[in-house]
Amino acid sequence: MTETIFTKIMNGDIPSHRVYEDDLVFAFLDIGPLSKGHTLVIPKESAATIDQLSDDSSAAIGRALPRISRAVLSATGATAFNILQNNGAAAHQEVPHVHFHIIPRYPDRPEGESGLGVIWNTGGFDHDAGAELARRIADEIAG
Amino acid sequence: MTETIFTKIMNGDIPSHRVYEDDLVFAFLDIGPLSKGHTLVIPKESAATIDQLSDDSSAAIGRALPRISRAVLSATGATAFNILQNNGAAAHQEVPHVHFHIIPRYPDRPEGESGLGVIWNTGGFDHDAGAELARRIADEIAG
Repeated sequence: MTETIFTKIMNGDIPSHRVYEDDLVFAFLDIGPLSKGHTLVIPKESAATIDQLSDDSSAAIGRALPRISRAVLSATGATAFNILQNNGAAAHQEVPHVHFHIIPRYPDRPEGESGLGVIWNTGGFDHDAGAELARRIADEIAG
Repeated sequence: MTETIFTKIMNGDIPSHRVYEDDLVFAFLDIGPLSKGHTLVIPKESAATIDQLSDDSSAAIGRALPRISRAVLSATGATAFNILQNNGAAAHQEVPHVHFHIIPRYPDRPEGESGLGVIWNTGGFDHDAGAELARRIADEIAG
């Protein structure tokens, strides 16, 4: 697998502000934060995108998210937050190693301190096409 | 726990385009999609935000995300996607039941079909304050 800056951070070759570690998961502060307490939660397993990640590593991250989130809220005083995980350069992914952003939200602070900005442009939904698409997704999962 | 529209969807009182279900997890198409294949993955457990969710339910969602993501990519032809999970009204959460959005990204399509828009205004980082904050988060997790 490709080595990334996250590999070097986990190995200790690049220093980081670590907040959590277990057998499968590593978490540390993002040094280009969207807000105070912006934390990255990553698998130790090397995978570029979550669709390529093992079930066990992804489950381990899922299991760690509630406790890391509680600790971030408690330490920052934030009461709202976003969890964002980007897959692919077209979806704003910069480092090709799976990472979950925990981003506290401080709506009264200026940009650069307030957290994640989201643009939510919903489109229409065709129920016949939706039923067909849901069937195809379900069939893919069933294998 | 408070019943939400998602409780009714899981009970079948409101119809949905289901794509996946196991003992702890339910997934269905969002009918206000940001793009084709926009899917919601939710725990059967009632919890408003992920910091309130049990480790087991959160792990089960984590475990399901890679396979659901692969199926969404395969069925839609998208090659990039975002996973977003909002906690609190100030962080754009609308339904007070934990939900993970899987949002395929189609950068060449018009707004309303292209996927999640993200505004990424990073702030500065003070390494001394960061070290202190990381210690406090780590201490909170250690309990």
